[in-house]
Amino acid sequence: MREIIVAGIGAGDPEQVTMQAVSALQRVDVFFVLDKGEVKQELVDLRAEILRRYATKDHRVVFGKDPERDRSTPAYVEAVDDWRRRRADVCAELIASELGADQVGAFLVWGDPSLYDSTLAILDDILARGELSFEIEVIPGISSVSTLAARHRVGLNQVGRPIHITTGRRLAAGWPADADDVVVMLDAQTAFTEHLDQDATIYWGAYLGTPDELLISGPLHEVAPQIEKTRTEARTRKGWIMDTYLLRRPIPKV
Amino acid sequence: MREIIVAGIGAGDPEQVTMQAVSALQRVDVFFVLDKGEVKQELVDLRAEILRRYATKDHRVVFGKDPERDRSTPAYVEAVDDWRRRRADVCAELIASELGADQVGAFLVWGDPSLYDSTLAILDDILARGELSFEIEVIPGISSVSTLAARHRVGLNQVGRPIHITTGRRLAAGWPADADDVVVMLDAQTAFTEHLDQDATIYWGAYLGTPDELLISGPLHEVAPQIEKTRTEARTRKGWIMDTYLLRRPIPKV
Ligand SMILES: C[S@@+](CC[C@H](N)C(=O)[O-])C[C@H]1O[C@@H](n2cnc3c(N)ncnc32)[C@H](O)[C@@H]1O
Ligand SMILES: C[S@@+](CC[C@H](N)C(=O)[O-])C[C@H]1O[C@@H](n2cnc3c(N)ncnc32)[C@H](O)[C@@H]1O
Repeated sequence: MREIIVAGIGAGDPEQVTMQAVSALQRVDVFFVLDKGEVKQELVDLRAEILRRYATKDHRVVFGKDPERDRSTPAYVEAVDDWRRRRADVCAELIASELGADQVGAFLVWGDPSLYDSTLAILDDILARGELSFEIEVIPGISSVSTLAARHRVGLNQVGRPIHITTGRRLAAGWPADADDVVVMLDAQTAFTEHLDQDATIYWGAYLGTPDELLISGPLHEVAPQIEKTRTEARTRKGWIMDTYLLRRPIPKV
Repeated sequence: MREIIVAGIGAGDPEQVTMQAVSALQRVDVFFVLDKGEVKQELVDLRAEILRRYATKDHRVVFGKDPERDRSTPAYVEAVDDWRRRRADVCAELIASELGADQVGAFLVWGDPSLYDSTLAILDDILARGELSFEIEVIPGISSVSTLAARHRVGLNQVGRPIHITTGRRLAAGWPADADDVVVMLDAQTAFTEHLDQDATIYWGAYLGTPDELLISGPLHEVAPQIEKTRTEARTRKGWIMDTYLLRRPIPKV
């Protein structure tokens, strides 16, 4: 039976790989990589470095072309669903043609596979089509969220209180109900600037875990301009940015 | 300058330790352990196993007595605050008496230090008192939440949607607003049974990462009785239980 490992490899520091991931990487015959048109060379290099260090068994790396996502449509969910279907086509084709009947394949996922990553959904899609069969093993990884909290040396929750993890798109639409601690990912639009009236503290981090890591924290309305400036400069300098933040509001007094 | 490392060591599998944590453990002179009256021997053994495998430098383990928390009062936050203060007293005393001026101390935290763990707050408390000074380094770990998702091979979020992480106590009070995917921790009261009317799927896991791991998933109203039965039996057999679950409700159609 074919086996496919989906392994979290941490947020950007090869040292964030777990012992369990290292053992798994040593069993892999074929690593599958979907590459976007505009490849971030540093992330490619970082992944190569992880393979160099830990994938000590003789293996192959095969590349698929990541289909374009339609970013023009307002129908976000449909666009992502359609994109996922086309990615499933590409992956199914790669697995069928490249992975032998008793071999072990792997997809490496930045951070943790459970957070805003489509690899598992794609593999489920492929299995649901019924043309290919394989076992899936998922190996958890250190997420950018855990890394953010660690670098700022804070917890994500206040005592006995919830944590809400959401996207920039949703935060821009309003502060989530029932939550004073909000983690924001996938924010291309600095949605925190919509909430400068809140009595909140922000803990912001970009390129977490990498040598280019940036950290800023403080009262939201005070440090927001500094974060915007730093973010714009960094994105211009490097051509891309990945950032995450925690917004913390004091618990309302009862 | 004294240094204190707060390292996440994963949810219960020594293989979940990261390379970064392994390097850090090799620098530690003194491990601090707060032991409760009723010690869960398996967790003590597991921690000892992690030290045996990875803490290869000559080191000491010193034990403090974890003060009792007042579980009788309905004033949850105050009780936890008071408990934290008394734990800070114990820790400050341990650090002052056991950690040399240029030594490295460490607290090992189950899962990830950012999730429902008081170690960082205790160290901040101690620093705020101004009598001791030390550097803090936090090393993220694989949380029970990431482990839960990995073992069930699911993501925590639906496409572009938020994730709400909360406690059993809060879930019992009502399904959180603005979230269809809810992760529940610290649930001594099987709060999911309050929501059997929801069209939800539950992904439940206990003793995640350990040889006793239990996993159950399915439509909430169908599998709830099985989870309750399994949970009660396991807790009786072992004398303790740690469990976590994800409740997933379909996204409302618009
Ligand atoms: C598609 S999601 C994948 C998240 C990933 N699975 C994880 O566990 O971190 C990408 C988002 O994760 C966050 N992210 C991932 N890596 C990051 C890093 N090294 N530094 C800051 N944010 C990061 C950013 O918010 C980014 O928009
Ligand atoms: C005080 S919190 C600490 C959480 C920890 N810092 C983490 O990242 O997983 C304890 C709660 O975490 C969850 N938990 C911790 N370890 C677990 C395990 N091995 N299996 C299932 N749940 C676990 C349970 O919900 C438990 O009530």
